[in-house]
Amino acid sequence: MRKAIVLFSGGLDSTTCLAIARAEGFSPLCLAVDYGQRHAIELKAAERIATSLGAPLHILHCSLREMGGSALTSELPVPMEDFSMEKLPMEKLTVGERIPPTYVPARNTIFLALALGFAETKGAQDIFLGINAVDYSGYPDCRPEFVSAFEALARLATKAGIEGTPFHIHTPLAGLSKAQIIHKGLLLGVDYAMTHSCYAPSLCGLACGRCESCRLRKRGFLQAGVADPTKYQP
Amino acid sequence: MRKAIVLFSGGLDSTTCLAIARAEGFSPLCLAVDYGQRHAIELKAAERIATSLGAPLHILHCSLREMGGSALTSELPVPMEDFSMEKLPMEKLTVGERIPPTYVPARNTIFLALALGFAETKGAQDIFLGINAVDYSGYPDCRPEFVSAFEALARLATKAGIEGTPFHIHTPLAGLSKAQIIHKGLLLGVDYAMTHSCYAPSLCGLACGRCESCRLRKRGFLQAGVADPTKYQP
Repeated sequence: MRKAIVLFSGGLDSTTCLAIARAEGFSPLCLAVDYGQRHAIELKAAERIATSLGAPLHILHCSLREMGGSALTSELPVPMEDFSMEKLPMEKLTVGERIPPTYVPARNTIFLALALGFAETKGAQDIFLGINAVDYSGYPDCRPEFVSAFEALARLATKAGIEGTPFHIHTPLAGLSKAQIIHKGLLLGVDYAMTHSCYAPSLCGLACGRCESCRLRKRGFLQAGVADPTKYQP
Repeated sequence: MRKAIVLFSGGLDSTTCLAIARAEGFSPLCLAVDYGQRHAIELKAAERIATSLGAPLHILHCSLREMGGSALTSELPVPMEDFSMEKLPMEKLTVGERIPPTYVPARNTIFLALALGFAETKGAQDIFLGINAVDYSGYPDCRPEFVSAFEALARLATKAGIEGTPFHIHTPLAGLSKAQIIHKGLLLGVDYAMTHSCYAPSLCGLACGRCESCRLRKRGFLQAGVADPTKYQP
């Protein structure tokens, strides 16, 4: 079985991505990044899910809190408004028009760079990234053109790449709505009760229900016509 | 003055790069990465040099030791042979043919990704990277085509990029020999006695004189016709 690195946060999207990687016949190695995110509870979810699926989980420590610049890595407040792209007519939307303060500068570039190094170390050529450019927050590093540019870079950047082993970045969720992602995951047996999406959970891990990430998740279950197993704060 | 992020290790190349950034009229912010390198002593040199030049130094912690795969981030021995490209006839050389075990998988991709996030956070558009593709060890991520691919990626990856603020990666040493780099640095007042290059220093910080990095440095001073101020182990 071919190894694949799955960038894994313990959230709804990356857990679905892990299930897809496995269904496609890969032997997944999960890579989570402890980047000093305020919702560190997601790493606990990542551990629980990886353990339950018997997939090895590696956690790399890379402190983006030392960099700041985002509501997820500093004391900037997490906004409770709806920033999702769906509210705006897509034909009028220019990406970047309303990127929320939860945007972490260059986060997916950093994550993919770490995954690339990890893949090369482990002898893997495939990297799965659960980004989604339909029900998303307008982050520039979630778009297909970003992924293509990274794939081109990866060929030039590595020993393996120039030795003729191209890296493939798989983004199986890129064109799916949140509801479609949930349907796909349920077909593959994902237990969404174990996943965590909230940017501003309570100390005991209950989701706030109001941040951007909770809103996208809630709406996804609603549109999918599936009961939402998330535990929200009262 | 325009801010520039200088990826900074306290070595000969990045110190010269810092001097060039300043001479070109930029206000440099030094960024060093504590990646669990075995020669952590280079971070001490980075601190001393940045302090002496009055340039702010930021150290980000990103543990590539957790990833392994290199003699610089694991207990693999640092080789004491000469791996430099100069030994081979350039016209016959295929890059990647003899990349030494000191290659750190995806290191410059990771460093540039971190610098990109840092630049965006600090409102800088310029990043200086002291890579060199003449007297070097054949690392794939030191070549101009790698840098161009990263620049293309940076435009797509960031909020600043899609808002019309392109990032520029400056590699002023790319086409210079080590001797030319030393000449350039001396003209700009660089004190090379403060810089550290060795991959396998003694506990008190003396250079081994035999690793790839020491060999390239020594030969540089020799070819430049300049006294080598490095303190080597007896």
